[in-house]
Amino acid sequence: MLEGVVLAGGRGERFWPLSRRARPKQFLPLFGGRSLIAHTWERLRRELAAEGIRVIAGSDLRERVCAELPEMVAERFVPEPVGRNTAPAVAVAAALGLREGDPLQLVVPADHWIPDAEAFWRSARAAAATAAATDGPLVTLGIPIRRPETGFGYIERGEERPEAAGVYRALCFHEKPERERAETYQRAGRFYWNSGIFVWRASALLAELEAHMPELHRLVMTLPGAARPQDLLAGIFERAAGESIDRGLLEKSRRVAVVEAGFAWSDLGSWSSWAELAEADALGTVALGETLQLDCENTLVLSDEGLVAALGVKDLVVVRTGDVTLVVDRERCQDVRRLLAELRERLGAERFL
Amino acid sequence: MLEGVVLAGGRGERFWPLSRRARPKQFLPLFGGRSLIAHTWERLRRELAAEGIRVIAGSDLRERVCAELPEMVAERFVPEPVGRNTAPAVAVAAALGLREGDPLQLVVPADHWIPDAEAFWRSARAAAATAAATDGPLVTLGIPIRRPETGFGYIERGEERPEAAGVYRALCFHEKPERERAETYQRAGRFYWNSGIFVWRASALLAELEAHMPELHRLVMTLPGAARPQDLLAGIFERAAGESIDRGLLEKSRRVAVVEAGFAWSDLGSWSSWAELAEADALGTVALGETLQLDCENTLVLSDEGLVAALGVKDLVVVRTGDVTLVVDRERCQDVRRLLAELRERLGAERFL
Repeated sequence: MLEGVVLAGGRGERFWPLSRRARPKQFLPLFGGRSLIAHTWERLRRELAAEGIRVIAGSDLRERVCAELPEMVAERFVPEPVGRNTAPAVAVAAALGLREGDPLQLVVPADHWIPDAEAFWRSARAAAATAAATDGPLVTLGIPIRRPETGFGYIERGEERPEAAGVYRALCFHEKPERERAETYQRAGRFYWNSGIFVWRASALLAELEAHMPELHRLVMTLPGAARPQDLLAGIFERAAGESIDRGLLEKSRRVAVVEAGFAWSDLGSWSSWAELAEADALGTVALGETLQLDCENTLVLSDEGLVAALGVKDLVVVRTGDVTLVVDRERCQDVRRLLAELRERLGAERFL
Repeated sequence: MLEGVVLAGGRGERFWPLSRRARPKQFLPLFGGRSLIAHTWERLRRELAAEGIRVIAGSDLRERVCAELPEMVAERFVPEPVGRNTAPAVAVAAALGLREGDPLQLVVPADHWIPDAEAFWRSARAAAATAAATDGPLVTLGIPIRRPETGFGYIERGEERPEAAGVYRALCFHEKPERERAETYQRAGRFYWNSGIFVWRASALLAELEAHMPELHRLVMTLPGAARPQDLLAGIFERAAGESIDRGLLEKSRRVAVVEAGFAWSDLGSWSSWAELAEADALGTVALGETLQLDCENTLVLSDEGLVAALGVKDLVVVRTGDVTLVVDRERCQDVRRLLAELRERLGAERFL
């Protein structure tokens, strides 16, 4: 049995000002007028029943999730009263899974871009076959490196596992590297980007949690035996420490495999990564909404209300939405968070967050 | 007798989107929260009675003018039903002046920046003294060249006139030059920028008009003898050909003098010329309204509604107002007009003009 677990708890600040507290990135209609979470749902639905997909997101976003995913089974929504990063979310999902026959779980972020669902499933099935073995590993999907990106985590692969081609022991996880180190990784040829997509047996994850995150394990193990597990969720998330599953567990566990992903992928980590995927004119400029460009190069211009006119500029991202206009150098999109940090400090600026 | 003539007929498109059809540049509060036309009025009022100042502007702007200049005498407003550039405007003003004792007329654009009214009047009085002589010339104020500007007209001076130091025969007018020629002018030391500020006796202007623009002269000479001259104005403007007084008359007349202006001046021809005058931070960035900048250089950021956030950009002008955001390379501000030309062609874009 394979079930889907959609992690929709992110706040996607780097897509500010289009993303706001009440409309995180996963709800933005960045492709084909549909939200990222709806695309993700559809990708999973290709092979899974609606009953077989859990969605984990902030409690405050329940209505928005329901609106985007009308097929979602209400009981499969896992509300987070507070954001605690990915470790508590996947731990809760595994403990809930344990109640229902210890399924394999395919964990996917809600806000990534994967255009080819068929190719995605070829890789996901390979990962699931690996994870399904007795004492099977926690399997991560590794994305072949395309550039020395400093914003991603990297996975170093070890020897190929015997059961199938393209499945490796995961030797080591590396946090976001400096530029020079990222270039070394790319040249080395045995590194992948960490996609944040995982497949594991619920009990396998819980066993590794017990070894490496015993406190979190103790918290979630109240769920399998509970009469009304949903009543315990708020308390668990509130008590859990915020941590990513990568850092909290996968970096430490020796029971991790990596499957080379055979599909196009982007984490859509910023405006510039999105602009790379959108359709550009001959000078590399992407325009959406009511816009006017003259002599612009390599620029993203987006308006969802009013007009944006750009003249003679290059290497910019310009976004106008509601009561905010953002203008940022395309190479600096990762730093949009710094703007938000400044805004949080500013009296009366909360309406812009 | 000296009277003031304020030319407020311009549309100031280069300050779009802050300037709109219904709010041309002269009505923008670019300095100290007050409009340029109000500053101009105040400058003249330093030495002139309100009764002694005419204001010429589009008929549709009458209410706006009255609101900005509550002191203005209603009969001194000269409405233009259609814009015809400066020659018809100053010709009408002169013909109206002739009815009232043939005054000297100090003609000033409504939308220039001249911070020092006292220095302005020192130059204006010198010009008036020159124009006041029997058969006195048409006097222009020439601005000492500060840079090889290609957006201005230039005046080449001839020999100094005997009546006062700093008063010259005007030898030649030169239209907006190419860069190289502008540099030659600057090096030559006998050229001025044409400020568009003039002093002449009404009858002197009319005499020169008769010689060089006889058709316009014929049209306006219906005014001095008319019982209700205001009833004739619309017909005159409608029939008159659009032409600037510089090109139509001053370039041809041999009765023109130039007085070197002894005051700081800007024609505020574009966003960038305004940015040069506004107060900048250490990196040359000017911010007005609700804005947020991080790591910006030599950039103007202005918002009159909502927030503009700029990150890591340089040499830009960013203006957010109402339903439009403009982003333009600082060196390309002169081309904002090209954006407007494009917008005029676009279906449904009229609300942005």
